[in-house]
Amino acid sequence: MQPIRLGLAGTGFIGRIHWMCYRALPGMYAEVPARVMFDTVYTSHPTEADRFEFSRALPYESVSSTCARIDMLDVCTPNATHRVLVEAAVAAHVPVYCEKPVDLSGELTLELARKADDAEILNQTALVYRFLPAMAAARAIVRAGVIGNVVTWRAVLLHASYLNTQRAMTWRLSRKESGGGALVDLGLHMVDAVRMVAGEFEAVRCVTRTVVGERPRTGAPDEMSRVDVDDWALVTADLVNGSTGTIEVSRVHAGREGTFAFEVFGTKGSVSVDLQRGRAVVMDAASRDVTQDIVLNDPWVTYLKTAFPSSKMSMGLMCDMHAASIYTFLDGCTGGDVGFPARPTLAEAGWTHRVVDACYQSADTGNRVDVQRPQAS
Amino acid sequence: MQPIRLGLAGTGFIGRIHWMCYRALPGMYAEVPARVMFDTVYTSHPTEADRFEFSRALPYESVSSTCARIDMLDVCTPNATHRVLVEAAVAAHVPVYCEKPVDLSGELTLELARKADDAEILNQTALVYRFLPAMAAARAIVRAGVIGNVVTWRAVLLHASYLNTQRAMTWRLSRKESGGGALVDLGLHMVDAVRMVAGEFEAVRCVTRTVVGERPRTGAPDEMSRVDVDDWALVTADLVNGSTGTIEVSRVHAGREGTFAFEVFGTKGSVSVDLQRGRAVVMDAASRDVTQDIVLNDPWVTYLKTAFPSSKMSMGLMCDMHAASIYTFLDGCTGGDVGFPARPTLAEAGWTHRVVDACYQSADTGNRVDVQRPQAS
Amino acid sequence: MQPIRLGLAGTGFIGRIHWMCYRALPGMYAEVPARVMFDTVYTSHPTEADRFEFSRALPYESVSSTCARIDMLDVCTPNATHRVLVEAAVAAHVPVYCEKPVDLSGELTLELARKADDAEILNQTALVYRFLPAMAAARAIVRAGVIGNVVTWRAVLLHASYLNTQRAMTWRLSRKESGGGALVDLGLHMVDAVRMVAGEFEAVRCVTRTVVGERPRTGAPDEMSRVDVDDWALVTADLVNGSTGTIEVSRVHAGREGTFAFEVFGTKGSVSVDLQRGRAVVMDAASRDVTQDIVLNDPWVTYLKTAFPSSKMSMGLMCDMHAASIYTFLDGCTGGDVGFPARPTLAEAGWTHRVVDACYQSADTGNRVDVQRPQAS
Amino acid sequence: MQPIRLGLAGTGFIGRIHWMCYRALPGMYAEVPARVMFDTVYTSHPTEADRFEFSRALPYESVSSTCARIDMLDVCTPNATHRVLVEAAVAAHVPVYCEKPVDLSGELTLELARKADDAEILNQTALVYRFLPAMAAARAIVRAGVIGNVVTWRAVLLHASYLNTQRAMTWRLSRKESGGGALVDLGLHMVDAVRMVAGEFEAVRCVTRTVVGERPRTGAPDEMSRVDVDDWALVTADLVNGSTGTIEVSRVHAGREGTFAFEVFGTKGSVSVDLQRGRAVVMDAASRDVTQDIVLNDPWVTYLKTAFPSSKMSMGLMCDMHAASIYTFLDGCTGGDVGFPARPTLAEAGWTHRVVDACYQSADTGNRVDVQRPQAS
Repeated sequence: MQPIRLGLAGTGFIGRIHWMCYRALPGMYAEVPARVMFDTVYTSHPTEADRFEFSRALPYESVSSTCARIDMLDVCTPNATHRVLVEAAVAAHVPVYCEKPVDLSGELTLELARKADDAEILNQTALVYRFLPAMAAARAIVRAGVIGNVVTWRAVLLHASYLNTQRAMTWRLSRKESGGGALVDLGLHMVDAVRMVAGEFEAVRCVTRTVVGERPRTGAPDEMSRVDVDDWALVTADLVNGSTGTIEVSRVHAGREGTFAFEVFGTKGSVSVDLQRGRAVVMDAASRDVTQDIVLNDPWVTYLKTAFPSSKMSMGLMCDMHAASIYTFLDGCTGGDVGFPARPTLAEAGWTHRVVDACYQSADTGNRVDVQRPQAS
Repeated sequence: MQPIRLGLAGTGFIGRIHWMCYRALPGMYAEVPARVMFDTVYTSHPTEADRFEFSRALPYESVSSTCARIDMLDVCTPNATHRVLVEAAVAAHVPVYCEKPVDLSGELTLELARKADDAEILNQTALVYRFLPAMAAARAIVRAGVIGNVVTWRAVLLHASYLNTQRAMTWRLSRKESGGGALVDLGLHMVDAVRMVAGEFEAVRCVTRTVVGERPRTGAPDEMSRVDVDDWALVTADLVNGSTGTIEVSRVHAGREGTFAFEVFGTKGSVSVDLQRGRAVVMDAASRDVTQDIVLNDPWVTYLKTAFPSSKMSMGLMCDMHAASIYTFLDGCTGGDVGFPARPTLAEAGWTHRVVDACYQSADTGNRVDVQRPQAS
Repeated sequence: MQPIRLGLAGTGFIGRIHWMCYRALPGMYAEVPARVMFDTVYTSHPTEADRFEFSRALPYESVSSTCARIDMLDVCTPNATHRVLVEAAVAAHVPVYCEKPVDLSGELTLELARKADDAEILNQTALVYRFLPAMAAARAIVRAGVIGNVVTWRAVLLHASYLNTQRAMTWRLSRKESGGGALVDLGLHMVDAVRMVAGEFEAVRCVTRTVVGERPRTGAPDEMSRVDVDDWALVTADLVNGSTGTIEVSRVHAGREGTFAFEVFGTKGSVSVDLQRGRAVVMDAASRDVTQDIVLNDPWVTYLKTAFPSSKMSMGLMCDMHAASIYTFLDGCTGGDVGFPARPTLAEAGWTHRVVDACYQSADTGNRVDVQRPQAS
Repeated sequence: MQPIRLGLAGTGFIGRIHWMCYRALPGMYAEVPARVMFDTVYTSHPTEADRFEFSRALPYESVSSTCARIDMLDVCTPNATHRVLVEAAVAAHVPVYCEKPVDLSGELTLELARKADDAEILNQTALVYRFLPAMAAARAIVRAGVIGNVVTWRAVLLHASYLNTQRAMTWRLSRKESGGGALVDLGLHMVDAVRMVAGEFEAVRCVTRTVVGERPRTGAPDEMSRVDVDDWALVTADLVNGSTGTIEVSRVHAGREGTFAFEVFGTKGSVSVDLQRGRAVVMDAASRDVTQDIVLNDPWVTYLKTAFPSSKMSMGLMCDMHAASIYTFLDGCTGGDVGFPARPTLAEAGWTHRVVDACYQSADTGNRVDVQRPQAS
C-alpha cells in the first residue's frame, strides 16, 4: 500500500476531527487507498507532535520551505491564514486539502483555484455534505425527474450556542479573520448542497442579524470586542430552473441546536434528507412514501457505497462525512480514479462562495443580487 | 338560559364543522352562554333541514327578507357570496358570524366592517387560531419580553391534497369566486397569527406558484378548467418591530399533509407552538426548556381557560378552535363581557386580509410592497 | 329516517362523550342509520334534561318502570350500577348499549349476556378499540399471514394522573364499586384488542401495584379512604397460538400520559398501530415499510370505511371511536345488517373480562392462571 | 506520557471498534492516560499487522508464550475462546480487558474472575453501558430518591437483522461457541444496566424463541446448520427492592432495528435514558419535565464528565462508550485512581451473567428462578 506523508496544519477542533479520520481509516474501510504516515504537524505548539504522534512539529511559517518533504498538506488553520498555506503547497507542487471557506471571498478562492489548476495540483475542500449518501441520493432523485419540476426547496442549519453572551470573542466573529459569520460557516455547506441537489443560483435576497454585538475578550473579560459578523441569516433565492426556496442558518436559535433540514418539493413529489436514518425520503404526489421503490443508477450514489463508512463502522455523522471526503482525496493522491463526478475542488468552493458573497451584498444593500453562474476556468 | 335562534348559511364542510360545534357545545363546556335553537338553514337543498334538524330550510336568496326572525347568522357559503349575506344580516340588525375570508379583498372586507360597525352589529370571523391557548400563550410570552427582542419567526401551514391532478375544479380554485388560493385559505390564518404574536407588518415580498394549472370540470371530466389561484406561496416579511420572518403555505407539498409550525426567535430565547401537546414551548438562551417556569398573567390566556374546551372534552383541534370561537360569539350575542381583548371582528379580518393583498401585489410585480398599518375605523 | 328514542343513563364524563356523539352524528356521517330523539336522561339531577336537551329527566331507579317508552338504553353510570339497568332494559325488551366493564366480573357479565341473548335483545358494549380502523387492519394483516407466525406482541396504555396524591377518592378506586383499577379500566381494552388481533388467551401471569394507597375523601379532605384497586398492572400472557406477549396498563406512569402502543411481531414481519396517523404500519423481514403494498380484502376493514368518521369530519380519536361504536349499535336497532363480524356484545365483553379476572387471580396468588376459551353461549 | 504496549486479540467487528478507539483517543480527549503502542495483534491473518499498523502479528495460540512482552491484552475473539486467552494473560501477569460475555456462563466467569483477582491482575470487561453518562445519571437519580420507591422498569434492546433467513450460520448462533443468543449478546448489557440503575435481582421468569431455526452454512449454502440459541427473549424480573419489570432483547424485531429503551417508574416520578440527546429525563409526579432542576453530586457522574468523550469530539455512541471504557482501563494500567466506583470487572460481569443463566434456566423449565445475589469474592 502506498504511503502518504501527511502534513497537517492546525490542531484545533476541526484539525483534530481530520486527524481522527486519518487515524481510524483502516478500521472504517475494508480497504484504504493509502497508508498515512503522520509526518509533520504545523503548529505553534511543539508538544503537539508527541500528542498526535507526528514525526515532527513545525511552525506554520515554515510550510513553504518544508512542505516538499510531505505528500499532501491538510489545512485546518483559521480562515484568513488558509491562503498562504495553500499557495505554499501549490508552489511546492504538493496536493492540498483545505477546510472551508478556502479564502475570505469567492473571488479570492477562484483566484487560488486557478493557481492550483494551472499548476496541475490536486486540490479539494471539505465541503463534506457532498459525501453524504442521502444528499447524493436526493440529487440523483431530482435529476431523474422523480419529483417532477422543482417548485421550492428549503435548507436549514441551526445552532444555539452563540446566544450565550459570556462566550468570548474569537477570530470566527471577526469578519477580517473569518470572512463572515453563520453564512460562511454554515451557509456555505447549505448553498453548496442546494447547488448540487436542486440546481444553480440565479439571484438571491438575504437578511442577516448580529444578535450579540459585543463579547468579552479572551483573557481580558472586562474588555469588550465588537462582533462584526452575522449570527443569523435568511436567504431567499431563485434558481436557474425557476424554483424559489430558502436557506436559513443560525448560531442563535434557542432550543434548535443541531437542527438540519434539506427538502425539495416538486410538481410530482418531494425528497428530503433524513439524517437520523441516513436516507433520502421520497414522497409521491399522493403523499405515499415511495423511498423503497426508487432504484437509482447514479455514479455518485454508487461511489459513496464504497467511500462512505458503513453504518456498522460509523464514527458519527461528522467524522463519517469527513472520512469520506479524506478517503476521496487520498484516493486522488495515489492516482485512483474514484469515479466521483463532483469532487469539491477549490474552484467548486469558489463558485459556492460567490453565492454567499452575493447574499452578503444583498444583506448590505437590501437589493436582489444576481449570481454569476459557474464557468469552466 | 337565553335561547339563540341560529341561522346557518351553507352546509358544506365548514358549515358542518360549525353545526357540530353548536350541537356539542353543552357537552364540551361546563356552562354555555346560550341555548342554540336550530331555526333556519339557508341552503338550496330543502332536505338539509331534516338532516341537520333545523326548523326550516330556505334558499340563500331569502336571507334579507327572512333573517329578522333569527338571532344570529352564521355564514359558511363560498367566499364570493359572503358579502350579500353579511350585508343582509347587517341591514336586518342581526349579529353576524362569517367564515374567512370575509370578502375577496382586504379593502372590501374593511368596507363591510365599517357598515357593520356603523350599524353597531356584533360581528366576528372564524380566524380561529386566535382561540388556540398555545398561540395566546406565545403572544403573552413575546409581549412579556421573555424571549427578548424578536429577531425572526416562521409560520408554516402545508397540505398535499391538491397535487392530485385528477381532483376536479372547484370554486376554491377560481380567483373570482375565492379571492385567492393557498394564501387566502391558509395564509390568512398564518398572517393573522403573526400579527397577534410577533407584531404588525411593515412590508412583504412574496412568490407564488400554481403547480396544477388546469383541472377536469366537475361532471365533465373530459373538459379542463383553468386554475388561476396559487397553490403555494412563500412570504418574507419585515415587521414594524424590525424582525424578518417567513410564512409558507401550500396545498401541494407531497408528504407534508397537515404540517404546522409557528415559532418566534428572539435575543434571549424562543417560543414555539406545539399543537400535539397544546402548549407554547419556551427555550431560554441556554436552550433549556423553561416552559414550566413561565407564569403568565394575561387576560387572553386566562379567558381561554374557560372558552377553549378542556382536553378531556376535546373534539379534536379543528372542532375545538371553532367551538371556542363560536362560544365567544354566542357570549357576545347574549351580552356577555368575555374579557377577550382580541375578538376577530370583520375589521380585524380586513386588516389581516390587507397583508395578504400586499403579498399578491408583490407576487405579481416582483417588488417589496409596504403594508398599511391597522387604524381605528 | 327512522327515529330512535334515546334513554341515556348517566351524564358524567363518558356519558357526555356518548351524548356528543349522538348529537354530532348527522354531521360526522354522510348518512346516519337513525334519527336520535333525546327522550329521557336518567340522572339524579333534574336540570340535566334542560342542559342536554332531553324531553325529560328521571331518576335511575325508575328505569325498569319507564324504559318501555324508549327505543334504546345507553348505560354510562358507575360500574356497580350497570347490572340493574341492563337487567331492566332486557326485562322491558329494550336494546341496550352499556359502557365497560359491563359488570364487576367476567362471570357476572356472561350471566347478563345470557339473559340478554335468551331474550333476544340487541346488546353491545363500548369496547371501542374494535372500531379503530388501524386495529382492524392489524387484525386482518395478522390473519392474512403477512407477518408469518406470531412470536410476540405488546399492548400498552399508560396514564399519569393518579400519581397526584391529593386527587380525591372516587368509586373508581373502590373494588366493590368499580370491579378493579387500571386493569379493568384500561386493561379490558387492551385484552380485547389482543384477543381480536393476535388471538385467544391460554394463560396469564400478572403483577399489580397500588402506588397511592389512600386518598382524601371528597368533601372531607382531612379523612383518608383506602384505595383497594391496582393503579399499575403488568401482564405476561401466552396465547393459544403459542406466542407470548405483555400488556401493561398504568395510571401512575409519570411523564407517560396517554402513551399507547400496540404491536405484533412475527416470523416474517411486524405490524403496529400508529394512532397519530391512524394506520397499521407493516414492516417486512427486511425492515422495509410495506404498509402501502398491503391490499386487504377484509369485511371488518371494509365496514369501518363507512362506520368510522372520515379524518375530515373527525372529532378526535376518543369521540370518533365512540361514534363508530354508537353508529353500529344504532344500525342494529334499525334492523341494519352492518356486516360487522365482531360486534362487542355483552358475551364478548364477558369473555374479555374473564381474562382480566384471571390476571387478578394471578396477581393475588403469584401463579400462572389458565384462561377458559370463549364458547358459544 | 507512559507508553502501553497493546496486544489485541481478534480483528473482527468489535476488535476493529476497539482498535479505532485506541487510535483516536488522543483526539477525543484533552488528556489521555497512556500512549498506546500498537505492539502485537493476535490473529490468524499475518497481513493484519500491516493493515492495523501493529509491530507484529502472531497466532492466538502463542498468547501464553508471548504476552509477557505486552502491557495489556484486549480480548475480542469469539466467546468460547476468551477463557484460554484470559487465563494466559493472568498467568503472565498481564492486565486483561475482555469483551463480553467473558465466558460461556456466569459460573465460569466468576471462576476466571477469582483467578485474576487472586493473582491481583487488573481486569475489566466491555460492559460499556456503565460508561454512558445518561445511565450513570439515571442511577444517581434513583439512588437519590428523586423518583421515590421503584415500582417498575423496562429495558429494551431490539434488532431486526437476523430475520433474514439467508444470513449464514455463525458461531454466534451456536450455543457451544457463544454461550447463548440475544440474551447473552444484548441481554447481558440490559441486565447489567438494571443492576446498576434499579437494583439487584431477586428472581426471574423468561421466555425465549428461536425464530429462524436453521441457516445455510458459510461456504456451503445448500447445507443447513441448526441454530440452537434464542433470537428473542422476554424477561420478567423481581428485584430485591420489591419492584417488577421487564427486559426484552431481540434480533428478529422487524422494523425495530436499534430500538433502545431504559426507563424506571417510581412512586414520585420517573427517569428514562434518552440516547439521542444523551441525557436522563426526569419527570415528576405531575409529569413535568424536571430534568434541568436535578443537581447531582455523584462520583460516577462526575467521573464520566472526564472519561466520556465530549459531544463535540464524539465518534458516535458505540465508539464513545467503548472509548470511555478503554480510557478507564488504560488509566488503571498506568496506576491512575479514576474514582470510578463501578469498574465492570470480571467478577461484576460474572454476577451479571448469573442473572442471564437464571433466565435461561427459567426459559428451559418454565419456572420462576431465584437469583443469587453478588457476594464479595
